[in-house]
Amino acid sequence: MNNSIGAFYHCLLPFLFYMLAAFSSQDALAQEKSPYVRVASIVVDSARLDSFRAAIKEGIETAVRTEPGVLSLYAVYDKNNPAHVTVFEIYASEQAYRLHIQTAHFTRYKAAVQDMVKSLVLTDVIPIALEAKSNR
Amino acid sequence: MNNSIGAFYHCLLPFLFYMLAAFSSQDALAQEKSPYVRVASIVVDSARLDSFRAAIKEGIETAVRTEPGVLSLYAVYDKNNPAHVTVFEIYASEQAYRLHIQTAHFTRYKAAVQDMVKSLVLTDVIPIALEAKSNR
Repeated sequence: MNNSIGAFYHCLLPFLFYMLAAFSSQDALAQEKSPYVRVASIVVDSARLDSFRAAIKEGIETAVRTEPGVLSLYAVYDKNNPAHVTVFEIYASEQAYRLHIQTAHFTRYKAAVQDMVKSLVLTDVIPIALEAKSNR
Repeated sequence: MNNSIGAFYHCLLPFLFYMLAAFSSQDALAQEKSPYVRVASIVVDSARLDSFRAAIKEGIETAVRTEPGVLSLYAVYDKNNPAHVTVFEIYASEQAYRLHIQTAHFTRYKAAVQDMVKSLVLTDVIPIALEAKSNR
């Protein structure tokens, strides 16, 4: 009896390892494919709106052009409250975001706007749907 | 003397009309090319999060797939406050947005979520930079 149970587990073990490996790699794949998304809410000094916009525009254009892991950066300001800026940020992964904030252009942007930003709230968000025309 | 001034203005007039026409068409072109962007902040009934996500995901996928003027719809929820949903919406024009809210799929989405939405704030925003990888 003991022997047959032993044989059963002996057969089961490779199967369990296979399932474990399959699930782990699916997990890794899902993590790899799932983008890292943040929303930044920034209140800008009203007297410095033009300078702030120029600085963030340059930083965004450089990041999306030069960093493979920076997928989208959308900066907008409220029509009825131009000092309130929202940045919708999509990175290929959290690692790509970590690399982004270490770049020379990001450091330059942060230094340029430090006296213009009155408040900054960063919100980690989870995608429900990220749909875009493929030919944009 | 009066005659020569008359002749001068006579020559100038077509030039002024030409300049006016050129600037107007540039304006129209700029408006046509400038996307219409909105940010929706939605607070969802915590007991209905899954149903809400399924409904908005289906509505977004249908809109981006079937409507030429719906360029991007990104729906996310706050990691630390899952009932708070943000939708970042990019339309080709304000007209494209007006068409979108008249579609059958949008009407169906609104009807499906009406009992799930606790509050909805729509903010008209002006783009500073809308940069995305072209090969996403």
